[in-house]
Amino acid sequence: MSDLRLIPLGGAGEIGKNCTVLEQGDDLIVIDCGISFPHAEQYGVDIVIPDFTYLIENKDRIKGLFITHAHEDHIGAISFLLPHINCPIYGTKLTLALIELRLDDRWKGPMPKMVEVKPGAKVPAGELEVEFVRVTHSIPETCALAIRTQHGIVLFTADFKFDFTPVDRQLTDMARLIELGQEGVLLLVSDSTNATTPGWGLSESAVTEGLRPLVAGARGRVLITTFSSHLHRMQQAILIAHEFGRKVVIMGRRMEQTLNLARQMEYVRFPRETLISMDEMSDYPPEQLMVLLTGSQGEPNAALSQMSRGEYRRLKVHEGDTIIFSTRPIPGNEGEINRVINNLVRRGANVITDAPTPIHASGHGYQDELKTMITLTKPFYLAPVHGEPLHQKAYKEMALAMGHAPHRIFVLDNGDPLELDEQKAWLGKPVTTGEVMIDQNEGRPIEMDKLRARQQMAHDGIVMVTLAVDRDGTMVANPHVEAHGVCGGDDVVPEIQDMLRGAIGRLTEFEMQETDYFRATIEQQVRKVLQAKTRQRPKVLTTVLVTK
Amino acid sequence: MSDLRLIPLGGAGEIGKNCTVLEQGDDLIVIDCGISFPHAEQYGVDIVIPDFTYLIENKDRIKGLFITHAHEDHIGAISFLLPHINCPIYGTKLTLALIELRLDDRWKGPMPKMVEVKPGAKVPAGELEVEFVRVTHSIPETCALAIRTQHGIVLFTADFKFDFTPVDRQLTDMARLIELGQEGVLLLVSDSTNATTPGWGLSESAVTEGLRPLVAGARGRVLITTFSSHLHRMQQAILIAHEFGRKVVIMGRRMEQTLNLARQMEYVRFPRETLISMDEMSDYPPEQLMVLLTGSQGEPNAALSQMSRGEYRRLKVHEGDTIIFSTRPIPGNEGEINRVINNLVRRGANVITDAPTPIHASGHGYQDELKTMITLTKPFYLAPVHGEPLHQKAYKEMALAMGHAPHRIFVLDNGDPLELDEQKAWLGKPVTTGEVMIDQNEGRPIEMDKLRARQQMAHDGIVMVTLAVDRDGTMVANPHVEAHGVCGGDDVVPEIQDMLRGAIGRLTEFEMQETDYFRATIEQQVRKVLQAKTRQRPKVLTTVLVTK
Repeated sequence: MSDLRLIPLGGAGEIGKNCTVLEQGDDLIVIDCGISFPHAEQYGVDIVIPDFTYLIENKDRIKGLFITHAHEDHIGAISFLLPHINCPIYGTKLTLALIELRLDDRWKGPMPKMVEVKPGAKVPAGELEVEFVRVTHSIPETCALAIRTQHGIVLFTADFKFDFTPVDRQLTDMARLIELGQEGVLLLVSDSTNATTPGWGLSESAVTEGLRPLVAGARGRVLITTFSSHLHRMQQAILIAHEFGRKVVIMGRRMEQTLNLARQMEYVRFPRETLISMDEMSDYPPEQLMVLLTGSQGEPNAALSQMSRGEYRRLKVHEGDTIIFSTRPIPGNEGEINRVINNLVRRGANVITDAPTPIHASGHGYQDELKTMITLTKPFYLAPVHGEPLHQKAYKEMALAMGHAPHRIFVLDNGDPLELDEQKAWLGKPVTTGEVMIDQNEGRPIEMDKLRARQQMAHDGIVMVTLAVDRDGTMVANPHVEAHGVCGGDDVVPEIQDMLRGAIGRLTEFEMQETDYFRATIEQQVRKVLQAKTRQRPKVLTTVLVTK
Repeated sequence: MSDLRLIPLGGAGEIGKNCTVLEQGDDLIVIDCGISFPHAEQYGVDIVIPDFTYLIENKDRIKGLFITHAHEDHIGAISFLLPHINCPIYGTKLTLALIELRLDDRWKGPMPKMVEVKPGAKVPAGELEVEFVRVTHSIPETCALAIRTQHGIVLFTADFKFDFTPVDRQLTDMARLIELGQEGVLLLVSDSTNATTPGWGLSESAVTEGLRPLVAGARGRVLITTFSSHLHRMQQAILIAHEFGRKVVIMGRRMEQTLNLARQMEYVRFPRETLISMDEMSDYPPEQLMVLLTGSQGEPNAALSQMSRGEYRRLKVHEGDTIIFSTRPIPGNEGEINRVINNLVRRGANVITDAPTPIHASGHGYQDELKTMITLTKPFYLAPVHGEPLHQKAYKEMALAMGHAPHRIFVLDNGDPLELDEQKAWLGKPVTTGEVMIDQNEGRPIEMDKLRARQQMAHDGIVMVTLAVDRDGTMVANPHVEAHGVCGGDDVVPEIQDMLRGAIGRLTEFEMQETDYFRATIEQQVRKVLQAKTRQRPKVLTTVLVTK
């Protein structure tokens, strides 16, 4: 029997770009394929995807891509994997529909084979067998994956919470989790996003009770911002609007598409006539309107951000508007969100980010839910993923407190293979992994050297030096110097020019041949002047033109 | 009698760079002169200061700079004002000492006249009179300013809380506030930082109870990070270290300087022998050590950030270290702080940002404290400052709920003069104000065009085009094209080169004369190729060298 290997390519030690490999012998499956968002110093980067090197190297062994649910951090990178790999994609009906919607935007090649799997069903993948087990989360039809291997069951929880009053009434299949536990779960690969939060999270349906008094008390328009995939949140908001005689406008193409699709497929239910188009808005007084929109994370191009700057033509925020942020900030976005909120307040809006009643519920289980999962499934080994190191560590401590032995708990990092056989589990030799930064316009990776150039230019600007020499190395034009984005740069340009005129005579034969060396010497001298005069360290770029 | 004018030049509608003008007739005083921190898109900007145009234009009328307390957002910009203005600086003993410490670093000119004012004392400033009234805050000797004008008393609260058990036992002078209220406060200019938080904040001394169990339970070294000015926090930490037989190392020059100065002046008290130097650290086992350091806001150059990256030579974080974040994140810093925390966890540290016991207390009063201030001082007009629009709005709503009339509450923005006479108050014509961005190396403002150049280069990189022509306009070298930081740029360089070779023949006389126009034409063509091939919009810079 060959060893079993679990390798997170993304999503371990981070929240985002989930992508995990499970392999035994010739069979390899991929679980999820998502994106994450860049941090502040990743200039010009729109999204970050996992490094797919390992998948590309092993593409002939891939039996399938199994998707647990249709959130961007689980499906967003599929279009970047498709050029390299041709394998079927397995997921529930809604998950596949939302993947197709996303691929329509981003993928021009042939559609991959999509195989619908009902929650509870099993899919063979070579010698492996993948069972979809329904769990509750913040998008319908999320499934944990129970993968039968020669060494036992690997239970991959996916993102989950235990919500006993989910909006769609579809509960986590706890009975099946217990059966799996009785049969014997070798390894539990668990969500750990909320492992630092004690207790038990709120049910999604509690948000109805939270939003109702705010909508009831609003004098004018109510704008509610949330994620475009948050179907149950939208359904609840629409039903409350209906209750208080408000019509609902969905603002934003992606949110509208998602909601329409889910409504047609009957994943969400609400009176159709409650929805109106943007054009019909003017037919209703403010107190009969609700607007659902994205932009809750402060994204500068979202309609909400544009409204905060007064740049959105179709809706001008003013006194009397109530704007409810029905999400929690993703760490790192707080600064931008804060700017949007305060600009909305400046325009007179009543902005609500917190209230005595709950206006948001997390999709991820808190400590006692994570403990419940462990208790139901009785795993031999545990590996917290879908969390930053802080969350993984908290999960480990929680499991230790429950009596699990430290050598059976693995805090994995991306690229660390957890290898298992009949007897034991150990960490294997790391595989290639990492962040691939994508510029969405270009649609392909941004190399690190380009990012470094951007970072240097962003911090200190650039100074360009241009020289022209003839074939003998004689200078045939005055040195040209230009500074861009350099604080104090304009003053120092003439000085650099003078320095160059004095320093460079005729280029020697050596300098003409070794232009890199020559340029480096010049750049060093220029940097010296800059450092002395401005204490700046801009990027210095030298061009030497050789005339005919 | 001339009208009274209050003009916030900074600190209204924001938290940071506090600077307010109060003037009547020929007399003008300036209250505080602080910095704020740049937001994410202000590349290469280290600090932001107020636009001093108004002060410079009116410098002959300035009777004094009155400083309420020694926090950076109240004193940090003094060194940028000194080149323009020569007036005495008034403040309490500690405040002046800390200003001098700061000026030693940043100011090479003659020291301004510094006038020490005891809490409770009054200072004449032309026809105005400024009384310093002690309040509690997160730095010792903070004072509200009660300014007697011809129209009545303007009470400028400064940053305050009502702490009944302050670490230095120096209470807010509530009796004096009541007397001022009885005499008649015309205008209350109030801190509103915590106006969205109900209830009453924690006393600073509660942090001792909060930190004690964490230090008691720590197996190895304890590192506590807070602001370098937080003297009472440091004193509490040092006393706890002493209690548990730990020695304390202060890491970071600024924190050490501040603490030493305050200890010599007896603003903080602790057994001297508890402090040891960094060199002595190796003489003690981990469980007998505590380290105090800055970097709690994720500042990339702080020792703590360096430790998180394993780059700090003198202290390597490892398993067994407990690291306590004894601050709250400043909005916008969460992303960086989160990265530092998770990197510290990766190195095995136990990082504590939250605990069942309080490890931090805000220096700003909550709603009920703000209401107490209003109740004690019974102002006729109210103006919340030191808060973002969200906080100012919450303050206004709170005051309305207390029965204050809406037309007597002014939510000011920077540059808005609040003008008052015997009868009424109104908003005057705005004065010049704004953000001045400073590069600390250069020490002078970064112009907006430089920032825009940086932003464009940061997002999309640059493409440089260089041409050489002789005086007749004949091209005398191949066009040179270089791309830096452009995603897909390397591939498109040859194509641009080809395009240019084809497009440019001999330059016409017109093109030689109107080089700006010529360059713009070329740049447009280059942008077209870039847009078609890479969908990027880098900055395109063209140089035309004319050979002799």
